[in-house]
Amino acid sequence: MTAIANLNIVPFVSVDHMMKLVWRVGVESFLIELAATIEEDFRRWEIFDKSPRIASHSSDGVIELMPTSDGTLYGFKYVNGHPKNMRQGRQTVTAFGVLSDVGNGYPMLLSEMTILTALRTAATSALAAKYLARPDSHTMAVIGNGAQAEFQALAFKALCGVTHLRLYDIDRSASEKCRRNLAGSGLDVTLCTSSQEAVEGADIITTVTADKQCATILTDNMVGPGVHINAVGGDCPGKTELHRDILSRSDIFVEYPPQTRIEGEIQQMPADHPVTELWEVMTGRALGRSDSRQITLFDSVGFAIEDFSALRYVRAKLTETGLYAELDLLADPDEPRDLYGMLLRSKTVGSV
Amino acid sequence: MTAIANLNIVPFVSVDHMMKLVWRVGVESFLIELAATIEEDFRRWEIFDKSPRIASHSSDGVIELMPTSDGTLYGFKYVNGHPKNMRQGRQTVTAFGVLSDVGNGYPMLLSEMTILTALRTAATSALAAKYLARPDSHTMAVIGNGAQAEFQALAFKALCGVTHLRLYDIDRSASEKCRRNLAGSGLDVTLCTSSQEAVEGADIITTVTADKQCATILTDNMVGPGVHINAVGGDCPGKTELHRDILSRSDIFVEYPPQTRIEGEIQQMPADHPVTELWEVMTGRALGRSDSRQITLFDSVGFAIEDFSALRYVRAKLTETGLYAELDLLADPDEPRDLYGMLLRSKTVGSV
Repeated sequence: MTAIANLNIVPFVSVDHMMKLVWRVGVESFLIELAATIEEDFRRWEIFDKSPRIASHSSDGVIELMPTSDGTLYGFKYVNGHPKNMRQGRQTVTAFGVLSDVGNGYPMLLSEMTILTALRTAATSALAAKYLARPDSHTMAVIGNGAQAEFQALAFKALCGVTHLRLYDIDRSASEKCRRNLAGSGLDVTLCTSSQEAVEGADIITTVTADKQCATILTDNMVGPGVHINAVGGDCPGKTELHRDILSRSDIFVEYPPQTRIEGEIQQMPADHPVTELWEVMTGRALGRSDSRQITLFDSVGFAIEDFSALRYVRAKLTETGLYAELDLLADPDEPRDLYGMLLRSKTVGSV
Repeated sequence: MTAIANLNIVPFVSVDHMMKLVWRVGVESFLIELAATIEEDFRRWEIFDKSPRIASHSSDGVIELMPTSDGTLYGFKYVNGHPKNMRQGRQTVTAFGVLSDVGNGYPMLLSEMTILTALRTAATSALAAKYLARPDSHTMAVIGNGAQAEFQALAFKALCGVTHLRLYDIDRSASEKCRRNLAGSGLDVTLCTSSQEAVEGADIITTVTADKQCATILTDNMVGPGVHINAVGGDCPGKTELHRDILSRSDIFVEYPPQTRIEGEIQQMPADHPVTELWEVMTGRALGRSDSRQITLFDSVGFAIEDFSALRYVRAKLTETGLYAELDLLADPDEPRDLYGMLLRSKTVGSV
């Protein structure tokens, strides 16, 4: 592949390439394959270099770098979170990422990750639910019908057999947008006028609201026995969605405790509140759901390994799809020590 | 400017653009202007978010992320350091960087930084020497004549009035390459057969070797009174260039002490060994050189703020030069909450 032969070139997956890739593979197949890649990496959790993301907070939002490595590949994601962006016609969250070769440090892929993050977040949620929701779960409430909602819906359809959606958003036009986008997906969609109504008869409750504040999207009385809660929206300090009474009654599953204790719903609880790590459930080290009346809660915040898996998945698709551009990102002098010579020769080429 | 109007687009400065930019501005003018931008940022040092770089070490090298922010702009650099790369025809160090708007988290520039890092490292060294070397310094020894050597030479010529270079490298072909590249620069270049010979009569000694090990490029007897040492090569744990007796005799100036104590020459010294921060010298808070017999040492490791300044400088040149491409990096749905709708519409556009 040309992209690999020329040392100066890094394959670049643009937003347009990513959209084409999703449809080339098929959105549900993409979610299933991506979830499989994430599961593969969760099953070898212990070999990864792990650290909480490096966040730069401001009054308007946060910019984060999320690096990790399995010793062979290194990946990082750049992601921002700016709730007020939406009012200015911008995305709350945008992202891009890089995958590199640990052996020589050279980047092997630069990819858009706004769409890819939406896909990996949904794939991770559905993957967790595969282990934690009741096997007979078919109805999911989705509270918060913004940019992440359809991705969650499709991932739960593809991976968990969800057939019925109950949507609620404080802005009804968001729910309507969601229903419109899911027409033809095979999902049976009901619009609800309150959270209370949305959770009626739901086997799975997904909360995915966007405000940067401690909110109470779910109160204790709304959560019946046997429910699996997929709490996606609470993902930074000061941003939660669930009443703490729900947390006390639930068995809580997390990605990476040091990060979730800072950013997740459990920031409301004491630092030693018991949680189970998702990778331990996947490898059989810990129990997932043990009975049909248990309330399980996936306190999702998004961890670097999921982005690493997503970049690895996209990288694996490059050769067969050709959906990338070649980016002249790395200086590659003929003689490695002769960086200035390369610069000097570019002058005499006369293209200035 | 189109690049700003379209929210999905991030201006991208490739290696080719960077080389053209250097010659458009002129390499010495570029170094002078870049140094001025770095000085500007050092003078407002206290307002920056500062942290040591985030390093991922492996047996072969290191991959680092270096973020910083002034509250208005956020920048980070990705940089690797893999000493054995050179033997495989690759660069020891490659880098790229991103500058973003803190207010909305959107990237405003993606730039190659392999060449730019070489320029900013040299500009920072020369800037430090402007404050620390004797004003009548004209002769510089450069020990280690690899990828960084010519950049150091030209920066010291442009900013400090160095006219004579004395080069030494254990590989004579590196010194010859350096002399060849500097022909026509106006510098008087002498090739030496040992470090001892190179430092004879030198007002400034620059050490810029590349091995990842504790080496002794300079011993105590080689450093006479009044010399300024610009120690560039020792920049990660276990990699130093100077005998510690030199450190004991010198007044030591550093960029950011928490990082330099881990990575710089002073990793050989007790954690409380006195150092002066360069920004304090620039703002007049601390004394630089106080007499002509003093030995001053700039223990350079490279700090995130210098990369931030470099990105800021390059960003400021975009409009006037047009030397960038437009990268489709950010998903930008017409309605921000309708990310899936954008994906869906791309399918019906039928370009899959």
